[in-house]
Amino acid sequence: MTIKAWGAHAADKPIVALDIERRAPGPRDVQIEIAYCGICHSDLHTVRAEWAGTLYPCVPGHEIVGHVSAVGVEVSGFKVGDTVGVGCMVGSCRHCAACGEGLEQYCEQGMVGTYNGPTADAPGHTLGGYSQRIVVDQDFVLRVHHPKEQLAAVAPLLCAGITTYSPLRHWNVGPGKKVGIVGIGGLGHMGIKIAHAMGARVVAFTTSESKRAEAHGLGADEVVISRDAAQMKAQRNSFDFILDTVAASHDLDAFSSLLKRDGTLCLVGVPEHAHPSPNIGNLIFKRRAIAGSLIGGIKETQEMLDFCAEHGIVADIEMVRAQDIDAAYERMLRSDVKYRFVIDAATM
Amino acid sequence: MTIKAWGAHAADKPIVALDIERRAPGPRDVQIEIAYCGICHSDLHTVRAEWAGTLYPCVPGHEIVGHVSAVGVEVSGFKVGDTVGVGCMVGSCRHCAACGEGLEQYCEQGMVGTYNGPTADAPGHTLGGYSQRIVVDQDFVLRVHHPKEQLAAVAPLLCAGITTYSPLRHWNVGPGKKVGIVGIGGLGHMGIKIAHAMGARVVAFTTSESKRAEAHGLGADEVVISRDAAQMKAQRNSFDFILDTVAASHDLDAFSSLLKRDGTLCLVGVPEHAHPSPNIGNLIFKRRAIAGSLIGGIKETQEMLDFCAEHGIVADIEMVRAQDIDAAYERMLRSDVKYRFVIDAATM
Repeated sequence: MTIKAWGAHAADKPIVALDIERRAPGPRDVQIEIAYCGICHSDLHTVRAEWAGTLYPCVPGHEIVGHVSAVGVEVSGFKVGDTVGVGCMVGSCRHCAACGEGLEQYCEQGMVGTYNGPTADAPGHTLGGYSQRIVVDQDFVLRVHHPKEQLAAVAPLLCAGITTYSPLRHWNVGPGKKVGIVGIGGLGHMGIKIAHAMGARVVAFTTSESKRAEAHGLGADEVVISRDAAQMKAQRNSFDFILDTVAASHDLDAFSSLLKRDGTLCLVGVPEHAHPSPNIGNLIFKRRAIAGSLIGGIKETQEMLDFCAEHGIVADIEMVRAQDIDAAYERMLRSDVKYRFVIDAATM
Repeated sequence: MTIKAWGAHAADKPIVALDIERRAPGPRDVQIEIAYCGICHSDLHTVRAEWAGTLYPCVPGHEIVGHVSAVGVEVSGFKVGDTVGVGCMVGSCRHCAACGEGLEQYCEQGMVGTYNGPTADAPGHTLGGYSQRIVVDQDFVLRVHHPKEQLAAVAPLLCAGITTYSPLRHWNVGPGKKVGIVGIGGLGHMGIKIAHAMGARVVAFTTSESKRAEAHGLGADEVVISRDAAQMKAQRNSFDFILDTVAASHDLDAFSSLLKRDGTLCLVGVPEHAHPSPNIGNLIFKRRAIAGSLIGGIKETQEMLDFCAEHGIVADIEMVRAQDIDAAYERMLRSDVKYRFVIDAATM
């Protein structure tokens, strides 16, 4: 089946309309008519070959929501008309220890990304959500229970939401805990909302005084301007956990020193240029840790979607047409978006 | 009471014999005749003012063993003649959360170091174990149950032993776990012995092929030459925990990449020059952590001493005379010691 998609033929080419093939649903497949797809910074990195290994044509997009239009004969959990989502993965080995624990994102054979991953389908690599339709193994399809009118704003939960939810859960953020969220962008604004809903005391860190009111609006109990040494010093040794969503190279010591004993600074972005080497004394003298976390497993992604539906959490989005993806990328590079672009698939 | 001690009058002066005062034991004090004192690299850093804040005269030494010669009227746990030890701390606030949890090394007011710490005693800062006698609050005195003839080799347990034991316990090293020990020196040789006694599979990392047989002798199940890329690659993704005892600047990625998902690389040495900035992708894609750990609390130090007595663990030592401390420092700087110098206090 030939459908419309939007992607690039090469790293230095614009995002244009393409015709791509989707397989007919196999016995365990769910065929989804895409309604909306969020724009993640990873899309830009991949389509412009800023990370190694981009295969072309490249159709990005891994924050997908839509409706089931067909299911394979062995599919029992989904039926035509269901509202569903697809995130960053469409496959994994299913046999390793990580898959066994429901942590497919850490699959020891490597997960299959929703785009640029290995597949038997043409053209030999997966094509993502900047498209009208996608066909996905039922085990990698999520159920969406949010109200229908929120569907576009649900899309970013599939990557930005789970990328923040998973470490917040893993490091036991909840009532009685003080948690920092560094950076108020696509990831950070979700982190604030989710940590707040988990019952923690949430402190948002931003370099920009202009984001103070917004951060409070998102659910931050306190907002700290990270360039203000006095404000930072007042926070020393007080955090159970800090989630750092800023991928650009920056000073990690400024945040590790804010952790209590046994606290963790968790990074979710790989910097293009290395961060300044962290102060090891900061870690030793309070048994602190610097850790990383990658999206979340399928089970946890469903848990996150259900949690967000229950707490009325969606992303703050700006809708764009498929024709405007390149322009959206440029604005994203200037942090000129509050806080996530979502493509209306009707414009494809 | 005036006693003999060995220390320095300034950063650029040699270690010489000094006369120092020890207080008469107060109601809660234990007076200890020092038998042996280990030489720790921290002693050298402090006495030569390589770290900030050294006060002179400086009498180092925080790996102390000896015998009780007097006790205060409120002391119930120790009596004259008991064999005891004193480690890196002789005081803490006793009121903060850390002290309440028996983690005095992380005291929020700052622990009182056995040397160079604040005290009401003359000369206004604590003087350590390179001395004939020390007077210590009972709460910071440890019981030694090793056989009498092992006493000199017990001394290094008070710092090198607990510095490795504490993180190995904290990160749950034991049967079924694979643990790496990086560096086979004063700390590392204790780490190998203790991790082995805890029942873990122990892999020693060294840059030197010549240490292979020794490392096996200490209890390593496997020895990996960390400069050999093929040997290192064969260990990827296989460790639950790696204890890195090397304080000199080195590549942390070589070790973080050997951790399983959710594994921790724990550093116990503060490098003079920063390590190359660690690869954050290595952390994110396996939810790994880089952490630090500082000695151990008093309760855990006692647990460590008891564990070592039970398992017949002591340090491998070379005895030196007080007159030879400077020479021992020079050899220590060349890593020419297997594996810890201990001063015979009878030579003071």
